[in-house]
Amino acid sequence: MRSEELGETLLPKRLALPIFASDPLSSVAYATQEILLVLTVGGTAFLYLTPWIAAAVVALMTVVVLSYRQVVHAYPSGGGSYEVASTNLGANAGLVVAASLLVDYVMTVAVSVASGVDNIISAFPGFDDFRVLMALAFVALLTAVNLRGVRESGNAFAAPTYLFIGAMLLMIATGLVRVAFGHAPEAASAQYGIIPEDGKNTLAGFALLMLGLRAFASGCTALTGVEAISNGVPAFRKPKSKNAAATMAAMGIIAVTMFAGVTALAMIADVHVAADSCDLTGFPNCTTEPQQTVIAQLAASVFGGDDSVLFYLVQAATALVLILAANTAFNGFPLLASILAEHRYLPRQLHTRGDRLAFSNGIIALALVAGALLWAYDANVTDLIHLYILGVFTSFTLSQTGMVRHWNRTLAAETDPAVRTAAHRARAINALGAVTTALVLVIVLITKFTQGAWLAVLAAAVLWTMMHGIRRHYDAVAAELAITDPHEEAVRPQKVHGIVLVSKLHKATLRALGYAQAFRPDTLEALSVAVERDTTRQLKEAWDAYGIPVPLKILDSPYREITKPVVQYVRTVRRNDPRDAVAVFIPEYVVGHWWEHVLHNQSALWLKSRLLFTPGVMVISVPWQLSSAPRADRPARRAPGAMRRGEPAQVKDVPEPGKL
Amino acid sequence: MRSEELGETLLPKRLALPIFASDPLSSVAYATQEILLVLTVGGTAFLYLTPWIAAAVVALMTVVVLSYRQVVHAYPSGGGSYEVASTNLGANAGLVVAASLLVDYVMTVAVSVASGVDNIISAFPGFDDFRVLMALAFVALLTAVNLRGVRESGNAFAAPTYLFIGAMLLMIATGLVRVAFGHAPEAASAQYGIIPEDGKNTLAGFALLMLGLRAFASGCTALTGVEAISNGVPAFRKPKSKNAAATMAAMGIIAVTMFAGVTALAMIADVHVAADSCDLTGFPNCTTEPQQTVIAQLAASVFGGDDSVLFYLVQAATALVLILAANTAFNGFPLLASILAEHRYLPRQLHTRGDRLAFSNGIIALALVAGALLWAYDANVTDLIHLYILGVFTSFTLSQTGMVRHWNRTLAAETDPAVRTAAHRARAINALGAVTTALVLVIVLITKFTQGAWLAVLAAAVLWTMMHGIRRHYDAVAAELAITDPHEEAVRPQKVHGIVLVSKLHKATLRALGYAQAFRPDTLEALSVAVERDTTRQLKEAWDAYGIPVPLKILDSPYREITKPVVQYVRTVRRNDPRDAVAVFIPEYVVGHWWEHVLHNQSALWLKSRLLFTPGVMVISVPWQLSSAPRADRPARRAPGAMRRGEPAQVKDVPEPGKL
Repeated sequence: MRSEELGETLLPKRLALPIFASDPLSSVAYATQEILLVLTVGGTAFLYLTPWIAAAVVALMTVVVLSYRQVVHAYPSGGGSYEVASTNLGANAGLVVAASLLVDYVMTVAVSVASGVDNIISAFPGFDDFRVLMALAFVALLTAVNLRGVRESGNAFAAPTYLFIGAMLLMIATGLVRVAFGHAPEAASAQYGIIPEDGKNTLAGFALLMLGLRAFASGCTALTGVEAISNGVPAFRKPKSKNAAATMAAMGIIAVTMFAGVTALAMIADVHVAADSCDLTGFPNCTTEPQQTVIAQLAASVFGGDDSVLFYLVQAATALVLILAANTAFNGFPLLASILAEHRYLPRQLHTRGDRLAFSNGIIALALVAGALLWAYDANVTDLIHLYILGVFTSFTLSQTGMVRHWNRTLAAETDPAVRTAAHRARAINALGAVTTALVLVIVLITKFTQGAWLAVLAAAVLWTMMHGIRRHYDAVAAELAITDPHEEAVRPQKVHGIVLVSKLHKATLRALGYAQAFRPDTLEALSVAVERDTTRQLKEAWDAYGIPVPLKILDSPYREITKPVVQYVRTVRRNDPRDAVAVFIPEYVVGHWWEHVLHNQSALWLKSRLLFTPGVMVISVPWQLSSAPRADRPARRAPGAMRRGEPAQVKDVPEPGKL
Repeated sequence: MRSEELGETLLPKRLALPIFASDPLSSVAYATQEILLVLTVGGTAFLYLTPWIAAAVVALMTVVVLSYRQVVHAYPSGGGSYEVASTNLGANAGLVVAASLLVDYVMTVAVSVASGVDNIISAFPGFDDFRVLMALAFVALLTAVNLRGVRESGNAFAAPTYLFIGAMLLMIATGLVRVAFGHAPEAASAQYGIIPEDGKNTLAGFALLMLGLRAFASGCTALTGVEAISNGVPAFRKPKSKNAAATMAAMGIIAVTMFAGVTALAMIADVHVAADSCDLTGFPNCTTEPQQTVIAQLAASVFGGDDSVLFYLVQAATALVLILAANTAFNGFPLLASILAEHRYLPRQLHTRGDRLAFSNGIIALALVAGALLWAYDANVTDLIHLYILGVFTSFTLSQTGMVRHWNRTLAAETDPAVRTAAHRARAINALGAVTTALVLVIVLITKFTQGAWLAVLAAAVLWTMMHGIRRHYDAVAAELAITDPHEEAVRPQKVHGIVLVSKLHKATLRALGYAQAFRPDTLEALSVAVERDTTRQLKEAWDAYGIPVPLKILDSPYREITKPVVQYVRTVRRNDPRDAVAVFIPEYVVGHWWEHVLHNQSALWLKSRLLFTPGVMVISVPWQLSSAPRADRPARRAPGAMRRGEPAQVKDVPEPGKL
């Protein structure tokens, strides 16, 4: 596949990290906040649980990162969780993962954009009235950029991501240094009390456990996007798997550091947030003023107020990386759709990888659904997150389970003790990963189902059913088309009867007649339908005047129809000689503007679609390029996300429009 | 045009009257009310103007009916106002009429449906909350019926229209008899006072004149639809013009009788209505209860209360005839669009008169715009009527002016004294009609422009500009296609190079190969693009295994594209021999369900559209009918409104789907 030429476009680790990690790293921006929002339903009574829950999330993330490093080594082709599950657990399990991932991509867009907007509003509270509008505008912007297809550059991804990492680490370090010097930062919200929900501050036993689990489930949003690198192994430089695994480790360490640091700072600065800001006693104008995000509160308290330059820098970097995270879904969604189409679970035309056109449908579908969710949920991060994590952990669990099977098979076939030891170790890691993520999946399902996760389950179920149906259809068609008797089925028609459709006599008609003659069919005639008496008379006169050597047949059409008389005539010709073929030549206009399509060729299109129902008929479009045509003769641009897939972002040998 | 066969489907007068008159007669249901609503802005002070205004409307209607009887005689082809204006005043004036009429058809639907719903609510006030919903439901119903294409029957139109006429005349007669016996009916609203708008009860001089003119302009809604018969002359039995003129006279007499009767009764019964029901002193619960329509109040007062059987009968007949009136626009709009398309002012495909498909776009466009207006104006009859009358009188004025020109030309050429006398008389009538309607047009423009008529003017202007642009485009294309040198332009290609596109080897591929061979092109090869290595290898193996005699060429596609390599290859072939033609055979699937289109042929379609940009290339679709295909092999049904156009409503020789 000319991979030698592509070498230079492959990604070094320093670029791969920001390209693949903007999604998982950006979730640090909301994970801590979501834990706190669950715990504060009991007022401040249970905030002591925060470090334990954060520790559990960190442990979980470590397990998942270690598990996915195994995937990177075992499946360097970049199929990710879908490939692992299909290969090892069967097509149905693979489809469950695929459906979950498709839902997840939608939620990545919705949640990241909503959180990005939240952080912009934290810096500029005046924009609060335009929350939904801003979110929709960002989705529209991402859609336009991805449909248009910009020249991708690794640096465009690298700068904001490294800026975000730098800003977070600087904030955490500054905060900790201030603690060491006895000037611990204090959040503006530290002074607010929190009104607990009725009776929720006296939870104990099972109810308390459920609250903790619910907070943990919310904190697990920190893990979203972790698997991204496992889908992008082919884009790495050689040795691909090793580099990908190293990048994954780096990503894991940075994510854990940032998440732990932000959570620790939030506890030190005594950040108080509540799902309803009117539950914050002392918070002014709770009905009109928005709460600041946890990140914004920390930045303000660490860097000396929410008008300092560094505060604005943190907010800008956070918003930017979140929008970038949403963009990754715009690359990932059409790519997964393309793989599913290759496996005939989605329409084939989504598969043509190289054509940007194939991606457009996916991009538009993603934008519409994400936009609808943002609109329906008022771009509220917390509400949207309930729909998010379920799919993530479904694919985690199934892919890790698949990996255990994979190692079982390896062990069954392998005798080399060194390989066996490595496989044993890997299997243990993946088994731990599978059990842990399955446990989290159950926790998420129990604590989130009624809060919105049911919608994600429903959507995945619908997608699963649809993809099954599509595959069944393609299989049925393939069976119908399978060659049983090549000698009988390859038989060629004895004669070809040529028919040129004519409405008026002009250049396009003359060309169609000339082409039809060049084919030398066994019989050839021109056919016209008498709809207007005058037009038909003019046609006959011109026919004679120009001395056209093809006989002209005029069909009577008492009810001024065109399609039916033509179809009936063609069928009659065919019926007279069932072993012959009828070739219908239709002059077609090629136009340059979309609106010209509305003005031309419509009856030709309709007629053609009717003719194709008749066995033994072929339809020949003889194009006439109108003067506007070259305008539209542009090859499709490259698909977005090429860099993530290890494909060159631009093709050099694109011919100029209209040059040929 | 086989008109002898159609004889039996032509309309006798007793059926033509209800079919063409439901629209003009139904306007009696709101004309009186609209006059009263304008006058009552001055409280009850100016209700004394009512009979004078009604008399003016009656006089105007007489003039217009007499004028249109001349049109019926002079233009029996049914082109109506558009034909008269184009023929006599030129294309631009014709287009103004056409644009006005298109706007009018939309308003006919909106106003008639809104008034129909109003009369239903008068009988069942509980439905008031669902006013807009009911209106939209009726529009949806009419759309569905017209898209589906029901078997039209004259009786379906006749029954409701005659019922309405009968109910109105019975109501008027009963009311007058009661007056004669000293039991004059009294409307429920007679007891309410009316609060005048600030200072409006002391209007005098110019202000009073304007109020009167405004009320007169509103009353002119009684004239909407009067020209319908002039569009339907071809549907009448012979002698067509005479029968049409007689029907027109009958319609005029009935309309005048009903309008005068209803207005007289409304004055006798002292009906009080106000634009805002809270201006009616004594009206209970004005914010929640709807006012009854004038018709409903009269029926209740004449027939003994709004729970009598006859009251419900009147309301049912009124609502039914109004919905029927809306339906006439669903027939008229696509028909006018078809004529405009014939004259190349609208896309050609709207012209194919016989195909129901050509009508679908018009029906949907009409329904969408009318539905949007009903929604935007809360299905409020009074607000909608401001947009209505302007277009009606624009076309009246221009067509009557055109008729004057017509008679001038007749008189210039004619010498027979009898004919000259008749023409002189006709010209006098049409001149009176032109002057009168022009005066009304000015009155309507002055009194209604700021109240909403500007929107109708704007819409007509946009339509006019668009139709001009379309005509210009078609003219430019016709000039581009005109044959200048038939001998050079008819030259046939020297050789034909055949290329069969192949992705897999199956029955459809074999058929395409067989058809291509049957054509005996000068060269023939099969072409495939190597996207997946495995698929390509399998294809090559199968090719050899089946011993296919056509050479197979595989194109390399480093970026997994299909379209570009194929297009480039075809262009190369063509460039090597610019005097030859390239024939690209594409196997296509013919399917039976709409969703199967999504699953098949998309890349073939895209490829085809790209190939057609290359001069010297023709694209040959070789269909393979999948087993589901016969399902969709149905000819289009007949277009709705056939009866109004004198065409048979059903075609007998429709073949059964899948039989051939």
